[in-house]
Amino acid sequence: MVGGKTAVLSGLPVEHRSMVLNGAPREVNPNGHHAYGQMYAQHFQLASPRQPLPVLLWHGGGMTGATWETTPDGRPGWLWRFLEAGYDVFCCDAAERGRASFAMSPHIYREPPVFRTAEEGWKTFRIGRQYARDSSERHVFAGQRFPVDCFDEFTRQWVPRWPAHEDMILEAYEALVERVGKCIVVAHSQGAGFAVEIARRRPDLVQRVVAVEPGGMPAVLPSKGLPPHLVVWGDHIAPSGSHWMGYRKQADDYFAAVSETADITTLDLPAQGVRGNSHFPMMDSNSDDVFQRVVAWLER
Amino acid sequence: MVGGKTAVLSGLPVEHRSMVLNGAPREVNPNGHHAYGQMYAQHFQLASPRQPLPVLLWHGGGMTGATWETTPDGRPGWLWRFLEAGYDVFCCDAAERGRASFAMSPHIYREPPVFRTAEEGWKTFRIGRQYARDSSERHVFAGQRFPVDCFDEFTRQWVPRWPAHEDMILEAYEALVERVGKCIVVAHSQGAGFAVEIARRRPDLVQRVVAVEPGGMPAVLPSKGLPPHLVVWGDHIAPSGSHWMGYRKQADDYFAAVSETADITTLDLPAQGVRGNSHFPMMDSNSDDVFQRVVAWLER
Repeated sequence: MVGGKTAVLSGLPVEHRSMVLNGAPREVNPNGHHAYGQMYAQHFQLASPRQPLPVLLWHGGGMTGATWETTPDGRPGWLWRFLEAGYDVFCCDAAERGRASFAMSPHIYREPPVFRTAEEGWKTFRIGRQYARDSSERHVFAGQRFPVDCFDEFTRQWVPRWPAHEDMILEAYEALVERVGKCIVVAHSQGAGFAVEIARRRPDLVQRVVAVEPGGMPAVLPSKGLPPHLVVWGDHIAPSGSHWMGYRKQADDYFAAVSETADITTLDLPAQGVRGNSHFPMMDSNSDDVFQRVVAWLER
Repeated sequence: MVGGKTAVLSGLPVEHRSMVLNGAPREVNPNGHHAYGQMYAQHFQLASPRQPLPVLLWHGGGMTGATWETTPDGRPGWLWRFLEAGYDVFCCDAAERGRASFAMSPHIYREPPVFRTAEEGWKTFRIGRQYARDSSERHVFAGQRFPVDCFDEFTRQWVPRWPAHEDMILEAYEALVERVGKCIVVAHSQGAGFAVEIARRRPDLVQRVVAVEPGGMPAVLPSKGLPPHLVVWGDHIAPSGSHWMGYRKQADDYFAAVSETADITTLDLPAQGVRGNSHFPMMDSNSDDVFQRVVAWLER
């Protein structure tokens, strides 16, 4: 566990509840000290790493480190591919997600969390235009590489998130890179936005960023040199709604602005003739091919 | 991800929120299909397991699989010790905890979650009589083996839980043992109560149960033969409040009732001269010694 703070609550009602299977009710008292804002990092350390820097894997919004473990159709994820390629890996759950835990609302977190429906995920992850419970009634983009037969399986690994918690999450990520030292950050979606921001804050520690389908960008431009970035884009952005065009433009604008002084490489898969990737290239049928392109860039 | 169901929500308000770093607001629509009730199991598979059955590690209330990974003071946890001993391991997050995710309340889960304070943990985990923010003002039981200097670190791995979700959690655990097949379940506290219940339901699959400081027990006695159980108890139960005496009595009564037909072994550490263990023997300073006693029983 890395980072986090302590909140003190008082004046809240004390309940009596059964807290175990067929247990007698006992006191449940929420008044006192609560940890919040910490994150979770699972460290995979090779006996003989062949690469000088560890890889930090940061998931996207409404996800956990499970993103990187196994694809929804059961193939090895990028976690294993990075280990095979000789990198030590930290597979992370951002503050408020998964094993990182979350805090009471409205007492510590001000708002309730936001949950993702299968309908929203289908569209936001650019699988197709429309989800339906009956898989035969779903619209799928032609050439889709996401394992669509396992989409419902995939929905089971989604977790809630809280909007407007960026400062808390970034604080824990910065504490993580301070603890790890020089590192490579490979991050997805909302997590890639965080990675770009942490690289802006700590170019002394973040040596490379792989921003897979980044969502969100820093509000201000860097005042000091940035490390090299690889930006990976999948397919079907234009037909997936105005917010997708907005995310793409936000990223394009940031990288255009910093490209005079920083080494920014774009791996636009459809522009290179690789069609059909979803928002999750690390889960798509060509996940190993995309991985090879990422590792080739890192090794260059 | 294992188990779980789908809920359909409708009629809820649609919001517009920024969901990524400095992102433009986009539609957030909670109406539609939500996965809930699934659990998470992280499978550690040895190249050459030396034991015929895998170990399923089930955490206690308000915890995740992180319980088994590393002790709060940074020593290897039982996850690693079981791997070293030649067992394949499934390190689990129960439904609603950690990477297993949780669902909207009051729409799918009826109630809000319950959070644990440092004050409550200090007493419930039998560290001492009183927590204080200033560590010099804390009461610690004499001979305490929990790494008390790392207690605040430990608070950062606690997660909320929902009372009255036993059926949902048990359903996912039963789906897990169905998927894994014959297995050993090593479980702690609330999770040990669940393990005893799942062994009662599925003695065809659960071949051994190690119930570490069990909290909660089945409401009904088994109708068919139970697998052998090892029940592990730490110290300082009597001075830790009436609910502790209740948990102990609930377990003692169940095991006394089944012991005519089942092989029940009690490892009462203080009764064997090992004083000072907390509610978390797998985190205490003698965690490796307790582990050796557990593994010796398994191998017998």
